[in-house]
Amino acid sequence: MSNKGQKVWKRAKGVIPGGNMILSKRPEMFLPDKWPAYYSKAKGCYIWSLDNEKFIDMSLMGVGTNILGYSNDEVDKSVIENISKGNMSTLNCSEEVELAEKLIEICSPWGEMVRFARSGGEANAIAVRIARAASGKDNVAICGYHGWHDWYLSANLQSKDELNNHLLDGLDINGVPKNLTNTVFPFEYNNFNQLEEIINSKDIGTVKMEVVRNIQPEEGFLDKVREITKKKNIVLIFDECTSGFRETFGGISKKYNINPDMSMFGKALGNGYAVTAVVGKEEIMQNAQSSFISSTFWSERAGSTAALKTLEIMEKTESWKIITNKGKYIKKCWQELANNFSLNIEISGIDALPMFNIRSESKFQYKTFITQELLKKNILASNSVYLSIAHDDNLIDFYLEELSGVFTKIRDCENGKDINDLLEGPVCQVGFKRIN
Amino acid sequence: MSNKGQKVWKRAKGVIPGGNMILSKRPEMFLPDKWPAYYSKAKGCYIWSLDNEKFIDMSLMGVGTNILGYSNDEVDKSVIENISKGNMSTLNCSEEVELAEKLIEICSPWGEMVRFARSGGEANAIAVRIARAASGKDNVAICGYHGWHDWYLSANLQSKDELNNHLLDGLDINGVPKNLTNTVFPFEYNNFNQLEEIINSKDIGTVKMEVVRNIQPEEGFLDKVREITKKKNIVLIFDECTSGFRETFGGISKKYNINPDMSMFGKALGNGYAVTAVVGKEEIMQNAQSSFISSTFWSERAGSTAALKTLEIMEKTESWKIITNKGKYIKKCWQELANNFSLNIEISGIDALPMFNIRSESKFQYKTFITQELLKKNILASNSVYLSIAHDDNLIDFYLEELSGVFTKIRDCENGKDINDLLEGPVCQVGFKRIN
Repeated sequence: MSNKGQKVWKRAKGVIPGGNMILSKRPEMFLPDKWPAYYSKAKGCYIWSLDNEKFIDMSLMGVGTNILGYSNDEVDKSVIENISKGNMSTLNCSEEVELAEKLIEICSPWGEMVRFARSGGEANAIAVRIARAASGKDNVAICGYHGWHDWYLSANLQSKDELNNHLLDGLDINGVPKNLTNTVFPFEYNNFNQLEEIINSKDIGTVKMEVVRNIQPEEGFLDKVREITKKKNIVLIFDECTSGFRETFGGISKKYNINPDMSMFGKALGNGYAVTAVVGKEEIMQNAQSSFISSTFWSERAGSTAALKTLEIMEKTESWKIITNKGKYIKKCWQELANNFSLNIEISGIDALPMFNIRSESKFQYKTFITQELLKKNILASNSVYLSIAHDDNLIDFYLEELSGVFTKIRDCENGKDINDLLEGPVCQVGFKRIN
Repeated sequence: MSNKGQKVWKRAKGVIPGGNMILSKRPEMFLPDKWPAYYSKAKGCYIWSLDNEKFIDMSLMGVGTNILGYSNDEVDKSVIENISKGNMSTLNCSEEVELAEKLIEICSPWGEMVRFARSGGEANAIAVRIARAASGKDNVAICGYHGWHDWYLSANLQSKDELNNHLLDGLDINGVPKNLTNTVFPFEYNNFNQLEEIINSKDIGTVKMEVVRNIQPEEGFLDKVREITKKKNIVLIFDECTSGFRETFGGISKKYNINPDMSMFGKALGNGYAVTAVVGKEEIMQNAQSSFISSTFWSERAGSTAALKTLEIMEKTESWKIITNKGKYIKKCWQELANNFSLNIEISGIDALPMFNIRSESKFQYKTFITQELLKKNILASNSVYLSIAHDDNLIDFYLEELSGVFTKIRDCENGKDINDLLEGPVCQVGFKRIN
């Protein structure tokens, strides 16, 4: 079988350390040696490989960028129109002002000012800079995944496992300045006592966290976080890069009725175009005026244009409701399938971004096996699904039906058959590792 | 006179701290209250304001992004074609591999591996991370402007003027972690002894510099920098974000026959689309595999697509020669004009990016006056010109003719007339300042 993508991937590893720009898109994270790796075209929830083979994407949807489906006609039209009138100039684009005003409306009543960047890591670094300037304190307590920058990875300087359980395990941090040791302190989700202890002992000026990722907040947890940060004059930042626009029109914090002091949005904001935002209270955001934060490409027009149109369509279609319902359905069906085959399944994630693991010593073998078997049916699948409004119900049912066939075989393995006999190649990688 | 742009700018300052995303595009840096501020359309070297008034851009050309002119037909066509086939997906885009291979060819023999980002600041932060990982040392000596990130601005922690004379004065750094004090050490351009002293006393692992910005390297300076860094196993990084592709097809280091260990390219690389690159030797770049450096939007397709087409056109037209010749001509004419009017002019910058200052107590008033008067002739002008192949000779002559008229009046001021009587509004801002 031809696999042009794997050939390009081999070339890539020779010219790009790690092979690509984002860990989550490495073929090794899915199905080493067999994953199609590269696309020629993407539309709706379909992706065409370099061999022009058509796949349904039941996996990452651009790692969460495309709630409106790939290559959404209206968003693309809007971007193409503005590109044709110039993506960049010595003057500014007014789309960024309109977008700021729209985000402020969405983040009412707490959102009052906005800065834009082009990647989520940047938005996180900008937010931390502004919060440190506002609080006058360098120390930050964090919970969740907040990107690749020095400030965040420095948490692993204290001990190399500090950031495990905050999404990605084994984050190596060579080259992060060792002077940053003891400036960033991770706390466990739902462990308010730990956060309180860190706040009381570490002179914390900023708390940055994902509102919710894999598990739901326990009763009162978020309220207590808001209360203590308010009382101690700590800047509370919600990183909504992943959670934003998936369950509400804006931050998922809306669902829990908690207002942060700042939030970051990215990923889905421009439906596949590079644009990210930091939104915050005016008194905090104005501290950007005493800290040099400036970059040429933050001013290009495509990103703001894409975001404006994306938000318009999201609001019109109430896309967050659609994807939440689809996700709820998938969660329910996963559970039913697992029950049918007596598999011990763990289902987690917010509804629009459901994920599962089969509780077993062989869980990574099973994950790999699922990818391997569904790929044969032209489905790109892993153990999580970033839903889009383009995932129509028939496609989801087709995916679930095919998954059912794989679950049968996994049951056989749980009953004594060797999963390694079924795997046609190496097991998927987990976390950050050197690849050759 | 209607000025929609200034109205939008007032709105912007209410919703965006500092008003926009890049200091250099603040209207206050040009002509407070009067600069058109926003564009509706840009094409070639023309920009249309929100009032649909047409201007010739004899100033920053997107702050250096558009060597092939605004909205270059071929680049736009290529990007639009790929956008229509999907800007983003769960799979990678093969354009990034092609672009890496092209940059390696351009940076032969030293360039062997590449990483991409979306902004110059990011590319700089990635390069420093990799260099610190490679050298095993945190301390960096720097010369020039390298962005807004903590690592760079931390130089101003030692004393707040450390970064003056490295392009931008008065960079405020609230929110940069104070633990980073004494990790980054600026040295003056052409001051090899100072660099040597820093290297010998500060356990430097990395030297990062602009190869050339405003003044030419003295005989042997760059060779000595290369020599000492090689001898001491220090990673030498050339920041070519601004200088790249303006005097050679690639880094300006080619002109001086000095090979760095790493370089960053940005600005002109994608002719107005957001894409930046870190190029380096394999043994150094592979250290990225022991340091988590990953971001979703670094994988979008528009940037790599734009860069591939931009490089193709640059190579075909030998654009660097064209803009260098245009710049040489402008420098010569500026000097002639100054001579004619007995003005004491200081001309600097690489040829394709010439700049001038009139040596006088009133130099900022004169700069403002030039902008004010040329704006009346529908020319966007300051005291530097980023040349593009779209700046045709007639336009340049038109600009020079109009400038001649302004120089006459400046001569009168040097001879006793009060420049403040000629200014119709406030003087332009210089460097980083709070604006309201």
